[in-house]
Amino acid sequence: MPELKYDVVGVGNAIVDILAQAEDEFLRRESIRKGSMTLIDTERMTYLFEKMGPTTTVSGGSAANTIAALASLGGKGAYIGRVHKDHLGAGFAHDMRALKIHYPTPASESGAPTACCIIMVTPDGQRSMSTFLGASTDFCASDVDEEVIAASRVTYLEGYLFDKPPAMEAFYLAAKLAHKHGRKVALSLSDGFCVDRHRAEFLSFVKEGVDILFANEVEATALFQKSKLDDVLQALRESCALAVITRSEKGSIVLADGKNYTIPVEPVAKVVDSTGAGDSYAAGFLYGYTHNLDIPACGRIASICAAEVISHLGPRPQTNLCKLVESKIGLLVKRTA
Amino acid sequence: MPELKYDVVGVGNAIVDILAQAEDEFLRRESIRKGSMTLIDTERMTYLFEKMGPTTTVSGGSAANTIAALASLGGKGAYIGRVHKDHLGAGFAHDMRALKIHYPTPASESGAPTACCIIMVTPDGQRSMSTFLGASTDFCASDVDEEVIAASRVTYLEGYLFDKPPAMEAFYLAAKLAHKHGRKVALSLSDGFCVDRHRAEFLSFVKEGVDILFANEVEATALFQKSKLDDVLQALRESCALAVITRSEKGSIVLADGKNYTIPVEPVAKVVDSTGAGDSYAAGFLYGYTHNLDIPACGRIASICAAEVISHLGPRPQTNLCKLVESKIGLLVKRTA
Repeated sequence: MPELKYDVVGVGNAIVDILAQAEDEFLRRESIRKGSMTLIDTERMTYLFEKMGPTTTVSGGSAANTIAALASLGGKGAYIGRVHKDHLGAGFAHDMRALKIHYPTPASESGAPTACCIIMVTPDGQRSMSTFLGASTDFCASDVDEEVIAASRVTYLEGYLFDKPPAMEAFYLAAKLAHKHGRKVALSLSDGFCVDRHRAEFLSFVKEGVDILFANEVEATALFQKSKLDDVLQALRESCALAVITRSEKGSIVLADGKNYTIPVEPVAKVVDSTGAGDSYAAGFLYGYTHNLDIPACGRIASICAAEVISHLGPRPQTNLCKLVESKIGLLVKRTA
Repeated sequence: MPELKYDVVGVGNAIVDILAQAEDEFLRRESIRKGSMTLIDTERMTYLFEKMGPTTTVSGGSAANTIAALASLGGKGAYIGRVHKDHLGAGFAHDMRALKIHYPTPASESGAPTACCIIMVTPDGQRSMSTFLGASTDFCASDVDEEVIAASRVTYLEGYLFDKPPAMEAFYLAAKLAHKHGRKVALSLSDGFCVDRHRAEFLSFVKEGVDILFANEVEATALFQKSKLDDVLQALRESCALAVITRSEKGSIVLADGKNYTIPVEPVAKVVDSTGAGDSYAAGFLYGYTHNLDIPACGRIASICAAEVISHLGPRPQTNLCKLVESKIGLLVKRTA
């Protein structure tokens, strides 16, 4: 087995987020589906940018956010995803490398510009995303670096990759390589409508290829098309060894070793922006998992990370998560390898 | 007298802020002067960008921040300052127009890129700024739009403009035009080291050309070279009709009508980032001033605006300031004109 270098490698769409506050009325007027991710083209992106309020620009992308939060916890992360060689792409790459994340994917020198996601944050803290995939549609199987996958305890895939066939192919390849090298595969279901678009593929992949599944209640319900939480949990138990269901302010449920673990939510004064909540939850959980912590500890770290990220605008931590978690639960395990 | 269209027109360096968290040790290692603004060249900007942590990009610029906060309060704002026709410049212009701010200055099509400010935010919430002036050095007297100045109750100038001769010329012209049309001139001293660099010019301008002066304690001390607060206040009283001294967590002092008004600070749970504190204070004060509110009300609105902006990363409000202020002090006066 090759040497372990990384706790988690994330594979996903490399996206820069452009956030603005918006009233619910704005979402209705501009036909933006609240709380979801909608794919948009250049024309719509230009239109929404014109219409949106004052912007904050930060690196995003679901799996990339997870790896950023993992790095902030002190975990060793790698990331595979494609930007264009442009202003936004340079910022995205900088933000990964500033966290000492190994990011080997070359930037595209032709084709579409770096992907961006126009995020409207309503007064209730909910985020509604309109994504222009841009250069991330160039992402394909040849970007999947076997050496990196082999050197990572967990390969973490985002469901959003299913939206483009070459990315889906890369997704399957990454999972196959991880298992070939005796590593674990984690999946985030990403978005309810994304699950709806690819239900059959997701179902068979969850049953056959996933060791750790992350989903919120809407996504898990969409996957199994069951309306009762208990039925969803039962279906999850039958499908994969370790599953985590996040339930916003109701906390989360972890299904592992034939047991249900109920993880309480970490209180926050105000939910400013839920962007990145699930991503940072996954980061905290995977940090614990890759450091052999027990499930309640994994869940507690996850909840603290999610609480930090929803208490400010933007999907990535603005605090050193390692220090934050240690201030709440004591010293975190450090890997020396 | 021409028709009044704007409460305040801001004149300043049009800058995009790139913020990152940093430890104090980082400032020492990279020789960044804590709490101040240092001018840097392209090479240093590239170097610091490489070294800095994960970034958040937002529109900045001292006077521009003030006008943005004024607009968020419901005030009518205009802005004069120069960007380049590039990615950052387009974002800056978007963010002004998204707030319905009149922004007539054309973007430069040749020369340096849009100005940017690399801001390190230390755990104590203090910000340390390294500014690459870029396209804002193209700003000159011909950019000063007499029609806009004439149509504004107050022309608000930032001291930073003194750092480049063509901008200084534009600064003097804007003040002269405001007075020619019977309008008021407000000045922010901007930065202690900036005051040191141009003390003589500032002193004579404060005595002859300023109706409303904004300064923090460091800047006012630097201006008069007096160490005792009482002496500084006395010098201010002798120099201009209305002066405001901001004192961070100690609140602020307004000198007006031969009286001292002590304005308490608005409490915040945590000072996350002090970038824009003075700018948003000035916005609140000028909103009150241009709506004929009394000094304590002007000060209270100012303090609420400053508290909002220091409670998150970035120099501009992330909340509708009009709603925020109204939730605390009741309905704000709306101009119908």
